[in-house]
Amino acid sequence: MKQIEKLLDFRPEIKAFDVTMRDGGLVNNFGFTDEFVKDLYQTNIKAGVDYMEFGYKASKEMFNPEEFGKWKFSDDEHIRAIVGDNDTDLKIAVMADVGRCDYKKDILNRSDSPIDMIRVATYIHQIPAAIDMIEDAHRKGYETTCNIMAISTAQENDWKAALEMIGKSSVDVIYIVDSYGSLFPEQIARICDLYGEFAAKYNKQIGMHAHNNQQLAFANTVEAVGDGVNYLDATYGGLGRGAGNCAMELLLSFLKNPKYNLYPALQFIEKHITKLKAEGLLWGFDIPYMLTGVMNQHPRSAIAFTNEKKTDYTGFYNMISGRD
Amino acid sequence: MKQIEKLLDFRPEIKAFDVTMRDGGLVNNFGFTDEFVKDLYQTNIKAGVDYMEFGYKASKEMFNPEEFGKWKFSDDEHIRAIVGDNDTDLKIAVMADVGRCDYKKDILNRSDSPIDMIRVATYIHQIPAAIDMIEDAHRKGYETTCNIMAISTAQENDWKAALEMIGKSSVDVIYIVDSYGSLFPEQIARICDLYGEFAAKYNKQIGMHAHNNQQLAFANTVEAVGDGVNYLDATYGGLGRGAGNCAMELLLSFLKNPKYNLYPALQFIEKHITKLKAEGLLWGFDIPYMLTGVMNQHPRSAIAFTNEKKTDYTGFYNMISGRD
Repeated sequence: MKQIEKLLDFRPEIKAFDVTMRDGGLVNNFGFTDEFVKDLYQTNIKAGVDYMEFGYKASKEMFNPEEFGKWKFSDDEHIRAIVGDNDTDLKIAVMADVGRCDYKKDILNRSDSPIDMIRVATYIHQIPAAIDMIEDAHRKGYETTCNIMAISTAQENDWKAALEMIGKSSVDVIYIVDSYGSLFPEQIARICDLYGEFAAKYNKQIGMHAHNNQQLAFANTVEAVGDGVNYLDATYGGLGRGAGNCAMELLLSFLKNPKYNLYPALQFIEKHITKLKAEGLLWGFDIPYMLTGVMNQHPRSAIAFTNEKKTDYTGFYNMISGRD
Repeated sequence: MKQIEKLLDFRPEIKAFDVTMRDGGLVNNFGFTDEFVKDLYQTNIKAGVDYMEFGYKASKEMFNPEEFGKWKFSDDEHIRAIVGDNDTDLKIAVMADVGRCDYKKDILNRSDSPIDMIRVATYIHQIPAAIDMIEDAHRKGYETTCNIMAISTAQENDWKAALEMIGKSSVDVIYIVDSYGSLFPEQIARICDLYGEFAAKYNKQIGMHAHNNQQLAFANTVEAVGDGVNYLDATYGGLGRGAGNCAMELLLSFLKNPKYNLYPALQFIEKHITKLKAEGLLWGFDIPYMLTGVMNQHPRSAIAFTNEKKTDYTGFYNMISGRD
């Protein structure tokens, strides 16, 4: 937190980035109703949110469209049905996973698409493939991000090599992604320093995508703001995989730019998020997610445990801490 | 966060302070079963927790014992029934509110009591009365703390005057209390600096008591650790008034002193905390608490709203943000 004098002021460069449908889609298999999506789109516009991520551009060769909601694939025509020509200040993003997206075929030219930004999600050992996707999207006219997942499991020397490669690409934003929710604000500060060096050298922006396994998603996002990060992922109600994400309502309450507006966010939450909760959709802080976060592990074991409505936390602890 | 090099090491001076029954008692009117209390006591011993707060020493002139559970009053005999002679490393604390405790009568000499520490809770305008209680407890042989509540609504000049007065008293620990859950880690850092000046001058320890209205209770506690604060309040499952407190399970996962042990905490949570949740006891982060936190208000309006099972968040927002 290096910019404490900014706590009452604001940086106009900051972007609030709604990823409710993409990270939340991992919770409900992308099965959002059209009413939900339309209301979310209108909410983001009214709340002054800068970007809205619709979902993944997943390969239909690899994933059967009959087994997922449509936002696993985010066809341009489905986005168009929600946003029309999107004559608003809200930009539209989708995520493309390295190795899971037929990007040359499925991502059209921006001039023919309602999409403004392609976010490329990659593990650190896949950077060259990510850069190929970034350059393809850049040539087609899109804004781009590179979201390096699971950085808490990578080594600092590998980060540096990755940031050097990504820095030389055409990408606009490099994201810090705490996939396992295992990082503390103090570590975020050090990571922001490192990313910041490369961002300054190559004139890139930095983004933050946090998970709430240790109830630190908002705290880590606030820390990142103070360390110069401008692209801030959040979801309404914190809806997202496992322990969920930084809550948009907390972020909008914190950001001081007068263009942001909490009220429509509250309207959306009371209409839609409380309904998902009441219907039994499971996400948000819970002991199993805390344990995978503390142990710097993927949350999939905790998701399975939670979905079975188990509360045998000690058994879960024994399982995931097993040395044999 | 000034001591980042300590993130993997530990300070032996740090004390984990269980306040589940006292702050959690505000949620269930101090109606804990004896089994709950006995198991909590054993859990704290096994987990290496340093202090356990049983409840308040409330005046029976002011509060009718028939209307509250016994831990509103924390009679020595009731504590003794749980802890016997407490021949353990766990110290026993109770809280005494300024203006609500017949301390001269109800607090016995330490040599005749199972209690080790008296925590005096005060608003900033009640400091002389708090000091009278502190000196009374000190003379009777107790360790003492002074918990200055709702500091987010007080002015820095008043803090300084209060800290100067308390510094000159016999108190052992001065607590930072974010009663409304409205403070950010960056503010905690500045407050720790200020408290730290007086603590150094008068050879006192500092404590942190956080609330989770903005999902920052754990983050603020971690920030305080990095800023030299040694007494850390937490509750199992975050059980506490409104949005609750820093979760003990998060704190025990974070603290590196090998004397701390997460496992018994998980056992207690799966046996007792999940049961309280299932029985419908309401606490923890929710939109109304977020709003009172953001607006730096007492959570009582949010508690009333939540207890009525309302989800009309926009109406609540309109009410508490009313200018008329």
